[in-house]
Amino acid sequence: MDYAERIRTSFAKQGMMTTLGATLGKVSSGAVEIEMRPSPAIAQQHGFVHAGAITAIADNACGFSALSLMPEGTGVLTTEFKLNLVAPAAADLIVARGRVVKAGRTLSLCQAEVFAVSDGQEKLVALMTATMMNIVGRDGISD
Amino acid sequence: MDYAERIRTSFAKQGMMTTLGATLGKVSSGAVEIEMRPSPAIAQQHGFVHAGAITAIADNACGFSALSLMPEGTGVLTTEFKLNLVAPAAADLIVARGRVVKAGRTLSLCQAEVFAVSDGQEKLVALMTATMMNIVGRDGISD
Amino acid sequence: MDYAERIRTSFAKQGMMTTLGATLGKVSSGAVEIEMRPSPAIAQQHGFVHAGAITAIADNACGFSALSLMPEGTGVLTTEFKLNLVAPAAADLIVARGRVVKAGRTLSLCQAEVFAVSDGQEKLVALMTATMMNIVGRDGISD
Amino acid sequence: MDYAERIRTSFAKQGMMTTLGATLGKVSSGAVEIEMRPSPAIAQQHGFVHAGAITAIADNACGFSALSLMPEGTGVLTTEFKLNLVAPAAADLIVARGRVVKAGRTLSLCQAEVFAVSDGQEKLVALMTATMMNIVGRDGISD
Repeated sequence: MDYAERIRTSFAKQGMMTTLGATLGKVSSGAVEIEMRPSPAIAQQHGFVHAGAITAIADNACGFSALSLMPEGTGVLTTEFKLNLVAPAAADLIVARGRVVKAGRTLSLCQAEVFAVSDGQEKLVALMTATMMNIVGRDGISD
Repeated sequence: MDYAERIRTSFAKQGMMTTLGATLGKVSSGAVEIEMRPSPAIAQQHGFVHAGAITAIADNACGFSALSLMPEGTGVLTTEFKLNLVAPAAADLIVARGRVVKAGRTLSLCQAEVFAVSDGQEKLVALMTATMMNIVGRDGISD
Repeated sequence: MDYAERIRTSFAKQGMMTTLGATLGKVSSGAVEIEMRPSPAIAQQHGFVHAGAITAIADNACGFSALSLMPEGTGVLTTEFKLNLVAPAAADLIVARGRVVKAGRTLSLCQAEVFAVSDGQEKLVALMTATMMNIVGRDGISD
Repeated sequence: MDYAERIRTSFAKQGMMTTLGATLGKVSSGAVEIEMRPSPAIAQQHGFVHAGAITAIADNACGFSALSLMPEGTGVLTTEFKLNLVAPAAADLIVARGRVVKAGRTLSLCQAEVFAVSDGQEKLVALMTATMMNIVGRDGISD
């Protein structure tokens, strides 16, 4: 399987993405997009998209970006991330754009920008930096 | 309304908590617990609880801890958090325990430990540090 | 005073920069560079530049980037940062390049990339994301 | 060598600690303290201790805490940390208290609280969470 197919297969296994109504966008080598439509089902108390939902797609955009550069059969686990929220997420669509900053043998540093899109205008709502770990030969953790 | 009632009202408004099946646990001054039952609907590709779901309850545990120390009518928004994941989250129950480390006039530093509970045994799976901002007099953002 | 002069004045007041042998590089609106020459005096146990020294110039590059966009008389304080270290810092010169990602009324999100430069080749060694706070009307905290 | 001796030897090799005037405090299994006396040489523009100096001792307190639990000959490198600053650091003495939250095979999660001590009273000024990596068999990186 090429990396794009591995990512689509892995994405499809994530119940969390279905629950959030998230879909995989553009997939390229070292960069992955994920989209999500705001709704009351993923909102916090003021009606904005919950930081947990934003995190879910940003984390995946980072993780799949890292996975796109790993050999087949290697799994990826998040070891840590930081999310800075710079504006309330209210829009027609939320897009997380992840990319690999530095791919390493054991750890990869990734970054994701999250945008709120309304009437075709994009506005930055959050920025994530994340460390992803390559997992080889551990049962149940691959692709 | 006292702080516990404000927190319960605010929690009930969060569609994201209903979507995740999360419930409010112990609420005290400066400390709040949130629980969630693992299921395929909130899983990532290997079957563990998705980091986005863990973040959602840890962020809320932090935010409500901060809110418990704020005057009525003050809103709370997350400005940033970091989550370190130290073990895959697989268990009967996931519990996030938030507390305020330092309450400030504008910003409060909070921390949440997230545990996987199986057969009554608790295991640390994640640690969050988060900055919460007091919001006063902004439309639509209170409690 | 224009922003460049305010930044040069503020930089000159920092004993820490003198102690590290750091110098101010290019200063523009929303972006500031700081340079430092590796030496045993700022090394850790394996001879690489200490993460504390890298942090000092990255934090300043972020803080002065934020300050460049603030009105005269406003002070800046760091509320938090995260630093990811992606390679050991060993080189002829270390350069931190800060820029403002989002300037807000109270908080600004900044980012700094830190490079090791050897024989004119740049290599990324660290990435910082930082939150800077505008301080107005607090004694002793301006510019 | 036992862990305390390995830590003392490693600390003594760090030019950065000498430059900052930092000294090693209490060393125990999984927990290490480092102290530093504020002075203009480590100050930022308002006269407070620079975040880079605070980071240097907090990072070391975390790294040596992790090292205390590793077998002899294993080196430790910081992969990332986040520092939240909750009060300006002005005092007679600054103390960083690090401890291991979770020791892993490859990565260890550590935390350090940094206190300003004046007239025997301690005040929290900063909180760090850090990820340390075990390094085995890489030239020049041990203890």
